[in-house]
Amino acid sequence: MDWKELIFSDVTRDYVSSITPHIGDTVFIRIRLGKNHPVQKVLLWTLVNGDGHWLEMKPVQQTKHFEYYQGALRINEPYKQYRFVLITRDEIWYYTRSGIYDYPPTEDHDFVLLAQDDIPDWVSRGTFYHIFPDRFARSGHTSLKPYTYNGFQAREMPWEAKPLPYNEAGCLDFYMGDLDGIRQKIPYLKDLGVTALYLNPIFEAPSTHRYDCSDYTRVDEKLGGNTALIRLSEALHEADMKLMLDISINHTGKNHHWFQRAQADPTSEEREYYYFDKQGNYVSWYNIPILPQLNYCSQKLRDKMYRLTDSVLQMYLKPPYFIDGWRFDVGNQTARHDEDQMGHEVFQEIRQALKSVRRDIYLIGEHWEDNISYHLGNEWDGAMNYFASLRPLRFFAGETDHFLKPKLPPTFERKRGNARAIASQIIQHYSRLPNPLMHTQFNLLDSHDIVRFHNQKNLFNKSWYRGMLSIAFLLPGTFSIYYGDEILLDGDTSAIEGCRYPMQWDESRWDKEARSWYQKLAKWKKSTLALQEGSLRFFPVDENVVVMARFTMDEAWIGVLSNAEETREIVIDLTPLGVEENSPLESLWSGERYMLQGHVWRTVLPPWGHDLVKIKLIP
Amino acid sequence: MDWKELIFSDVTRDYVSSITPHIGDTVFIRIRLGKNHPVQKVLLWTLVNGDGHWLEMKPVQQTKHFEYYQGALRINEPYKQYRFVLITRDEIWYYTRSGIYDYPPTEDHDFVLLAQDDIPDWVSRGTFYHIFPDRFARSGHTSLKPYTYNGFQAREMPWEAKPLPYNEAGCLDFYMGDLDGIRQKIPYLKDLGVTALYLNPIFEAPSTHRYDCSDYTRVDEKLGGNTALIRLSEALHEADMKLMLDISINHTGKNHHWFQRAQADPTSEEREYYYFDKQGNYVSWYNIPILPQLNYCSQKLRDKMYRLTDSVLQMYLKPPYFIDGWRFDVGNQTARHDEDQMGHEVFQEIRQALKSVRRDIYLIGEHWEDNISYHLGNEWDGAMNYFASLRPLRFFAGETDHFLKPKLPPTFERKRGNARAIASQIIQHYSRLPNPLMHTQFNLLDSHDIVRFHNQKNLFNKSWYRGMLSIAFLLPGTFSIYYGDEILLDGDTSAIEGCRYPMQWDESRWDKEARSWYQKLAKWKKSTLALQEGSLRFFPVDENVVVMARFTMDEAWIGVLSNAEETREIVIDLTPLGVEENSPLESLWSGERYMLQGHVWRTVLPPWGHDLVKIKLIP
Repeated sequence: MDWKELIFSDVTRDYVSSITPHIGDTVFIRIRLGKNHPVQKVLLWTLVNGDGHWLEMKPVQQTKHFEYYQGALRINEPYKQYRFVLITRDEIWYYTRSGIYDYPPTEDHDFVLLAQDDIPDWVSRGTFYHIFPDRFARSGHTSLKPYTYNGFQAREMPWEAKPLPYNEAGCLDFYMGDLDGIRQKIPYLKDLGVTALYLNPIFEAPSTHRYDCSDYTRVDEKLGGNTALIRLSEALHEADMKLMLDISINHTGKNHHWFQRAQADPTSEEREYYYFDKQGNYVSWYNIPILPQLNYCSQKLRDKMYRLTDSVLQMYLKPPYFIDGWRFDVGNQTARHDEDQMGHEVFQEIRQALKSVRRDIYLIGEHWEDNISYHLGNEWDGAMNYFASLRPLRFFAGETDHFLKPKLPPTFERKRGNARAIASQIIQHYSRLPNPLMHTQFNLLDSHDIVRFHNQKNLFNKSWYRGMLSIAFLLPGTFSIYYGDEILLDGDTSAIEGCRYPMQWDESRWDKEARSWYQKLAKWKKSTLALQEGSLRFFPVDENVVVMARFTMDEAWIGVLSNAEETREIVIDLTPLGVEENSPLESLWSGERYMLQGHVWRTVLPPWGHDLVKIKLIP
Repeated sequence: MDWKELIFSDVTRDYVSSITPHIGDTVFIRIRLGKNHPVQKVLLWTLVNGDGHWLEMKPVQQTKHFEYYQGALRINEPYKQYRFVLITRDEIWYYTRSGIYDYPPTEDHDFVLLAQDDIPDWVSRGTFYHIFPDRFARSGHTSLKPYTYNGFQAREMPWEAKPLPYNEAGCLDFYMGDLDGIRQKIPYLKDLGVTALYLNPIFEAPSTHRYDCSDYTRVDEKLGGNTALIRLSEALHEADMKLMLDISINHTGKNHHWFQRAQADPTSEEREYYYFDKQGNYVSWYNIPILPQLNYCSQKLRDKMYRLTDSVLQMYLKPPYFIDGWRFDVGNQTARHDEDQMGHEVFQEIRQALKSVRRDIYLIGEHWEDNISYHLGNEWDGAMNYFASLRPLRFFAGETDHFLKPKLPPTFERKRGNARAIASQIIQHYSRLPNPLMHTQFNLLDSHDIVRFHNQKNLFNKSWYRGMLSIAFLLPGTFSIYYGDEILLDGDTSAIEGCRYPMQWDESRWDKEARSWYQKLAKWKKSTLALQEGSLRFFPVDENVVVMARFTMDEAWIGVLSNAEETREIVIDLTPLGVEENSPLESLWSGERYMLQGHVWRTVLPPWGHDLVKIKLIP
């Protein structure tokens, strides 16, 4: 095997003496080379206040197959980047997170250490459960007072009914799921193995999705009000679970008292919270009049939203609510309006304000595209990882990108994504994320904003789904189960409401086999260091087979997923992981054991086959 | 030829209806496809306030070989990014500045339009001449008053002598070159064909390099004082030339009156301009005590340096000095000290302050590494392009990186850089620069900080040098000739002073042939649109041959450079440029004409051969 294939380093505990250093610390950095490498000298290159420095690394350890070099890096500044420079007799090689180069590459893929201790370490150790609050569980403590809104009539639906599409019902079909209902289901959630909840908006609002908030300080009475939130939060924490809430700080509803005052009185303080022109027209999100956009040029708005100790974003972190995270709706669009591009400034201020209240609060943004600019350590802890989990994995199954679909010619028939492209898309993204932000990404396959994958009959293959799910759970970050996915909840693929069907509580209609997969994956995630903070590596096979490993020096977990119509023989040389010759692999789904042939794993995958194996490693 | 090879678009006038749009404008964007493409639909993808939009493009023009699609992009925000999405019967392709992908790549290489009109358009139309002021020309108007500094004695040197190395003379060997001397040589500069001067520091300072400034408001008396600067500026502008000055705002000299006061009086205003600890120790650049580092936490320092109308950086833009550009010494390190990483903030403020005085002032920073973070449009116009001109081209010749060299094992023998690596390094950098910042980069092969390339006898081959120079002039941006390079001025490779030898004014000792190459290249640069703002493309040949084209729809200039020890047959299919079959190429150095064979250019390069050709194109 080429010596360059055996080089490895990353920002994990195996290679960095502290992954959350403080300024002033000295951190020891290691790199692994294969034993018969031609390297005569290893240098660690870093920037010190913008200036390039080359530090010498020394060989410190020899093992059966590898040699380790170590160097000492002084952490003088918060965002500390480095790479390795490997010198042979007549060549200079540069090793970064995107591989090895024979010229100095641009710095986007340099290794990065963040000297900050405000990134939540609980996230990667567990699994989230994502609930659309009106549709999960009903305690019966609340009832609907009828009203009309936006030309539609709010109405209470029987739990078994199917909601009408938005354009026929205006998102006013209430099932009256509520927070006490969720609280009562904590045993169900514990049994499933999830460790945190993510609730879509719960603040006072007229519609079922509640992104048209009328008062951020009040929990909707239909959900049980502020006291129900306190009860839920207490019960979750007692059950050792976390709670993340969803909020749009990009826009309010038109019923919000700020907007009501702003619109009624051009001289009011609230007028500047929004974008009004001289004629009294206002800017709204996607030109939807019920969603007026907030204007962060207003310092007073910033005060009310996050700077003051009783501001919206701060109040829920504190007693009696004690929430553990915020998910920012349309995070990519927030505080951006043409000339006014204040998104990064506002999220920097938000992070500073909130992390000074609670260091381990989890802050993520909604973002469907490349979101690296929010991930320098001073804004978000993570994004809803549409970009590098949901989108590539669904693409691999043959799905066309959600937003792109309506633009395609009617004759278009999507080819299944190829394995090399999937691996590139995922690696391109992760190799720009500073550690530990790699491990605080919010991975998902489904959400309240997209048709459930398993409801697409043309794409869904139940046995394959287990393989897709395995890869999704293996990705660095946490995984979010969208309520009902675990029982393969029914849905409708023609409208957004189709993914918001009420939860099925009739156990006879559950897919219990699927549920058992979720339970196992959640359990493995909770107990496996390799899945929580291990290294990430793809093994190229062919256009149809994704092979992805997460590993520490002790153990590797390897997911394999094929989208080929035929059987495929897979031959993977696992030498780069540090495997012992002829050692056994355990298949986690079947319990079967394979033996390596030397360092090589040979197996035959059936059409649309998959596997998930683990193997002990030697350093 | 694969249809994907024939796709082309970039941010030039041929493909974008306005390359310097204003907010509110609609810009028409084009993409070219080969005639027999399988694409059924072309979309233009852009972000509008962070949100992805897909705009439809329509076929608007068919030519002999190509089909053009066009779409309309509304410029709603200052930094406007876009890419192309090409849809075939069953595939979706993404075309960005780094090529074509079968999955959505990260956004680093998206095309970018900057909606701003403060980027100087004069830069790419000319050639700079870089002067180390003490060493270029002596008017005799000034004389040295002897002094000691830093333990060394300032002394006046005869023009023919060689300066002693820094550690033996403390940079106090004065040749008494001065500004009037430079002024007297304007006819020489005009004859060479350069259009702008870049002078190393001229402000009052004890040493020859003058980075240890003692007063930014005074031009050093040894150079003729402020009045000589006024005379020089007037004379240059009369000769239709521009003037860029060099300044270190990262540090002053210890003799600076600010530092003198700061050190003497801990209660002085100036104390906060520097980093003093409680013991009175101060931070200095590279721990060199004579260069105390400035502390931009001080708002008062920012006022004095660039915010006030009579601040240092503003005063020289105005009458009577009227300079046209600033080069910021150690730009990469400025306003950065451990926890205080204010570099970007300070340069954003500087740009805002200076561009409001003079829209077309040219602002560049010294930077040897990847400097993309300063190039979002709101900081620098360009960098001294060590990263993507000097370093890769010298590497191609077999030189080891300057700063890395002392770290190498004594047995190391550098392999010549390979052509693919050179192309990748250059393209990786340029494809992240927004246009028009591509064309305001400050390209160079030599400077006052590095051994002159031609003085390295083991690397220098005079005929090859012409080819290297051709490629350097062809790169997007301006080119800077370091004084004396044009006559192959002698130097010493063992010390920094070796590249600062006094200019040779004895014409009999000039290399007049080399000078004629510089004259021609400067003339071509001044008169050729393709070199000023044309597109950039490399053609892969093999490990030893770089083929680089700059082109508009009318004309291509192609530089070819080999570092092979043997002859090489070169076969390049020029179809992607839009060449007419069997049309002629003109070799610019030999005047020879080649004929294409169909669309293919065949030629034989001798060992270490080169060529520079131009060819007419059809759209």
